[in-house]
Order: sequence, then C-alpha cells, then structure tokens
Amino acid sequence: MMISRAAMSRLPEYLKYLKSVEESGALNISATTISKALGYGEVQVRKDLASVSGTGRPRTGYVTSELKGQIESILCPEREIEAVIVGAGKLGRALLGYEGFSEYGISVVTAFDQNPKKRGEDVNGIGKNVRHMSEMKDYCREHNVKIGILTVPASAAQSVCDTMTECGIEAILNFAHVRLKVPDGVTVENENLALSLAMLAGGEEKV
Amino acid sequence: MMISRAAMSRLPEYLKYLKSVEESGALNISATTISKALGYGEVQVRKDLASVSGTGRPRTGYVTSELKGQIESILCPEREIEAVIVGAGKLGRALLGYEGFSEYGISVVTAFDQNPKKRGEDVNGIGKNVRHMSEMKDYCREHNVKIGILTVPASAAQSVCDTMTECGIEAILNFAHVRLKVPDGVTVENENLALSLAMLAGGEEKV
Repeated sequence: MMISRAAMSRLPEYLKYLKSVEESGALNISATTISKALGYGEVQVRKDLASVSGTGRPRTGYVTSELKGQIESILCPEREIEAVIVGAGKLGRALLGYEGFSEYGISVVTAFDQNPKKRGEDVNGIGKNVRHMSEMKDYCREHNVKIGILTVPASAAQSVCDTMTECGIEAILNFAHVRLKVPDGVTVENENLALSLAMLAGGEEKV
Repeated sequence: MMISRAAMSRLPEYLKYLKSVEESGALNISATTISKALGYGEVQVRKDLASVSGTGRPRTGYVTSELKGQIESILCPEREIEAVIVGAGKLGRALLGYEGFSEYGISVVTAFDQNPKKRGEDVNGIGKNVRHMSEMKDYCREHNVKIGILTVPASAAQSVCDTMTECGIEAILNFAHVRLKVPDGVTVENENLALSLAMLAGGEEKV
C-alpha cells in the first residue's frame, strides 16, 4: 500500500479522532465529517484515507472501527520497533528525548558515542543511558535492532555508517551532511534539517 | 516556479558540480552527464533541472553558466536570509550549530530562551549567543527577521508562537509537537522528526 509522507504525518491525528468517534458510539464516519472536525481540506482527507482504506461507501462513509483498525495496523505494530542513535552530540541527545516517535510505534532505546566520558550518562533523566560505541554490535544483535539514527559530524559519518551496517543495522536515518555508501540491502534516508526552512524562506516563489 | 522539496534537496549538489564543470571549461552540459557524475537517475535529474531551467537543448544540453546561474539565484539570495531560534533547549542548541543552512543562503543568527540563566551563553563557541525572550521583539525589528524556528516544548508552543508573530515573524518552522494557530499572512511548516524514521521503519509496505 502506498502511503505518502504527508498522509503519514496526519495518521496519528486521524487515529486520535477516530477513537473519540468510536467512544461516542458512531458506527460510521464520513470523510466530510473528519475533514470538518480536524480542519483539513476534504480532498486531502479523502486522499489520505483512500491510501489507508480505499474509498468510503456513498452516504455512510467508513465503518469507524474498521478505519481505526486499519490506521492502527500502520501506526501500532504488534511489537514496538526499536531504534538506536549513533552520536550523542547535541542533536543525538535532543532526539533521544524527542516525544514524537511513539506515535509511530517506534522506541528510540539508547544512544552510542565514541567518547568514553559520555558512557552511562542519562541524558534526559528517563533512563536511556548513553553507551560506548564498542557496545553497539552486542547491543544491536541482542535486541535485534535494525534501525539506526546517525547524528555524528559529516567527517566521521561514513566510517560510523560502516560500523552500523556491520552491527546488522539495515535502515539508517542520516542527519550527517554527507552522502553515505552502504552495502546492498541497507536503506538510507537523508534528513536535511535545512530543507524545510529553505522551502519556507522561498515562500511563494518556490512552493 | 515550482520546485519540489526533493529537487531542492539536490540543488546544492548540482551547483557544486556545475561550478567544477565551469572551471574545467565545458560550455555545455547534458542531463545525462550530470546524472552519471552524481549517481542520480537520469529521469530524476531531467525533472529537477526542468523545474529550475526548463528542458535542455537536444544534443548540447544546458549552457553550463546559465544553469549554474539559475540554481544560484535560488540558493544564493543577494542578501542572506536571517532566521532565529526560539527555545534554546537541546534541539534549539543543535540547530544553532547545524551546518546545512548556509547551503540555502540562510543564516541562523541567534536563539531566544525564557530562562535568564541561558542568556549570553555561546552554545557552540561560534559567537551566536543565546538571548532572553524579552529581547526578541527589538531584535527581530532591528534585524528585520521574518523567519523563526520554534523549538520549545509542546505545552509552551502556542503562547511562544503568539509572541513570535507579535515580533513580526511571518514564517515559522515548528518543531513542537502541536498544531499552531496563527494570524492570516503567517505561514507555518510543521517539522516532524519522527516521520522519516516511520517511513524508513515501514520499509516496503509503506513506501
């Protein structure tokens, strides 16, 4: 099923709303009602829901519990997906405490850093201690971690990336400002924090 | 002109490459050559360049200096765009030192925080001192700042957002996990750091 990034960004809100609708006892819900309740355009809501559940029935719309279930199956995997951060600098530490991951069933469980001084530090006071880079291989194998967030400086990124793939990591979210070379079967998603600001700064000319 | 987010993300690389091509003395450059040099698909390169410069000429392709100039006009505004950060927590501090903004002609000049203890702190040792929130209005007016990056906790976001628009900020990049209400004429772009990871975690099912 093809779900766009934009639709994905709205799914947690749909889910929250559908839960409240279900509690109120409404068995069916139309795209129009959802659109009005959340303040999104109707075309956008129809498109989002179509990618999750197909089109609603004429007049009645969607079966509330069904639609809720379909969104839950995307957002709430049976077992939380564990991800690790590699590089406990400012950004890595910020991400370790970022509250938005749980909405997508992802738990960022720990951060690795090569600086031995950071070892054991409980960055946000929530028990997610920083571990030394040398512990990464054992940790990832033991916890079957397949996803890593790379937040080291650009100069170190490729070598750290190599270590990550050696540890069995198959998907890397790359915050370093450099293109990474990875073995076949490993996926890289480059996160460019400047991009949204550039689009915003460009205003009408660019968007 | 419509330039997609994806194309925007590649423009700095095209520019860098075109500069090297120009230095080598090649007056013309084809999309095929660019595609091979940078390792991007040819269709993608053609699409990116079409949004910046129209289609190249049959056989000769683009005039190197022209194409370079067109990309520069997007990435390098005559005067650097100044942006401020509001909220000098972990994420705000990380963004204050983030190196990717300059590629898009954006300079993040300072960060504001309501904690008086942070006042004057030179977070990254690069002279971008944290200022107190009470200084924001005067600073933004004096420097004609129109762009703000909001990195306060969700609970404080709307009230801080109100202050930002009162300070004359017209475009807000929102990292807080909450939808903001803004006056007409103010643009908000919501940055969801969990989204890329969610797309990556979803793998083949979702993308």
